[in-house]
Amino acid sequence: MTEFDVIARYFTRQPQQAAGLVDVGVGDDCALITPTPGMQLAVSSDMLVVGRHFFHDVSPYALGHKALAVNLSDLAACGAKPVAFTLALALPSIDEAWLQQFSSGLFALADAHGCALIGGDTTQGPLNICITVFGEVPRDQALLRSGAQVGDDIYVSGTLGDARLALEALQGKIELPPEILAQARLRLEQPSPRVALGTALRGIASSAIDISDGLVGDLAHILKSSGVGAQVNTEITINLVAACARIDWSKGQFDTLKQLKTVFSGGDDYELAFTAPPSARQAVLAAATSSQTPVTRIGVIQAAPGLRLIDGSGKPVTAQFTSFDHFAA
Amino acid sequence: MTEFDVIARYFTRQPQQAAGLVDVGVGDDCALITPTPGMQLAVSSDMLVVGRHFFHDVSPYALGHKALAVNLSDLAACGAKPVAFTLALALPSIDEAWLQQFSSGLFALADAHGCALIGGDTTQGPLNICITVFGEVPRDQALLRSGAQVGDDIYVSGTLGDARLALEALQGKIELPPEILAQARLRLEQPSPRVALGTALRGIASSAIDISDGLVGDLAHILKSSGVGAQVNTEITINLVAACARIDWSKGQFDTLKQLKTVFSGGDDYELAFTAPPSARQAVLAAATSSQTPVTRIGVIQAAPGLRLIDGSGKPVTAQFTSFDHFAA
Repeated sequence: MTEFDVIARYFTRQPQQAAGLVDVGVGDDCALITPTPGMQLAVSSDMLVVGRHFFHDVSPYALGHKALAVNLSDLAACGAKPVAFTLALALPSIDEAWLQQFSSGLFALADAHGCALIGGDTTQGPLNICITVFGEVPRDQALLRSGAQVGDDIYVSGTLGDARLALEALQGKIELPPEILAQARLRLEQPSPRVALGTALRGIASSAIDISDGLVGDLAHILKSSGVGAQVNTEITINLVAACARIDWSKGQFDTLKQLKTVFSGGDDYELAFTAPPSARQAVLAAATSSQTPVTRIGVIQAAPGLRLIDGSGKPVTAQFTSFDHFAA
Repeated sequence: MTEFDVIARYFTRQPQQAAGLVDVGVGDDCALITPTPGMQLAVSSDMLVVGRHFFHDVSPYALGHKALAVNLSDLAACGAKPVAFTLALALPSIDEAWLQQFSSGLFALADAHGCALIGGDTTQGPLNICITVFGEVPRDQALLRSGAQVGDDIYVSGTLGDARLALEALQGKIELPPEILAQARLRLEQPSPRVALGTALRGIASSAIDISDGLVGDLAHILKSSGVGAQVNTEITINLVAACARIDWSKGQFDTLKQLKTVFSGGDDYELAFTAPPSARQAVLAAATSSQTPVTRIGVIQAAPGLRLIDGSGKPVTAQFTSFDHFAA
């Protein structure tokens, strides 16, 4: 089987050729797209490396899902609707069972979002998956990191930290009850990009980012880009870890600091952090309802630079939390 | 130095933000482009892997050049004008001298083509470079592989096979005089994407492809996509190797078969192969002149499937040549 056979068998599908904007898909030197007039094209690219972003023995189906999910999450953070993607794949060897499962996981998520594979590359090398994704957003309605204003509320979608708990359990660092691990592992291996929420927040949110490196690090990007600071309530955020609520605390494995660290520095959540003015609270709730995505208000944007954590009574929390860094981790 | 520092120091430049269609470049969840009305967007993605596409000790400057060049070559083959690109980079470690040279080579070529870096990803892993490139072409003027018609002339641009000779010399398989190796090595390590020729051939060429896996393999893609066959004159193609013309044949290192193999199966040429009707010969020459790119007419499209090689007197050449395959090589 040659690289051309791999592309033909696992990554070429006729129906996608007819998809929306795609004039020419897989199989020519370039794919050709006709962008919708009046729309901006949103572009994002993510690379996943074996041993760094996933375990060697991860399910290929889950890996296909996650490789696209992390990219769709970037579109969600911009409020863009997914349109198409390219896939570049370095494989140690051609393993047809692996390719079958990988492409199944990939296309299941792509189809759920109407996102067509339009091209890419296949080569021999250490397992590496690079996806570039394209979405559309009405001109000047994209959600950026730079729009947060003093007084805006800060929200996060869904739950945070469960992916990190699953990672640590799989690494043998902590123990989780099997049924809790199973759910947390789904969050780690098959995250749900918040595309519906992102598009619903157009014209409502003043800024947004997806949480891939941990809430603290990603919120810091919003603060820096917007030239503002923030105050976040840890009594609210500590309850964002779905798994923690069901863990037996008597074992002492999860103290408050550990729980907060899981929320703030966990990473791999692929939830949205976003800001909106207090006048938009009803609109934010309506967007959450229409997109069937829970959101939680966790703090407020302030003028003074930096992130300040407070507990439920308003007292400062002094613990420091860091962002995930691929070269330091 | 963190991954964010790497991006800020080596891959973020202010001037590009103002470039043409780019509304938001490096530094948000997505880049935002406003496509030009009436234009199609051409997209291509290529992944370069250490030990497979380049030697461990290749000059980082040359590598930066080549990583973008192979992608621009795909745009050239479609007749698209480069607009922007994303870069995903896996690095074993952060080597600032390497990054400085790599980004210099990358941006030198990008600037020469007015192509802005708009986003990407940086992570830790075995050296891997994945670039996705975007170009524009007027609606329905893109050059495709599928347009070749019976009776069309077949052309190639520039010279072929020199990159392969350099590769074999660097691998110690053959010996080349130093000054010839130096020139051939430039072709291997810093190929010139034929963007000017590609855009000049809009409305003239009936089909086109870039030659990355060798003339035989890439021409076969045109034949298959167009549902035609071809006859190619080996007496003409054998002279397409620039280096060969200057080699001392008395050493016997390069017999005719070896020379033909270098042309037909060499790979890494990044020249264009294209077809055009005989009525367009003057227009093809004018496109070659205006783009300052030599082109050579090497054969003709025929109805019978397959590629037939003939010598100068019209006799069949029976030698078989294959395409480059990353999983077989």
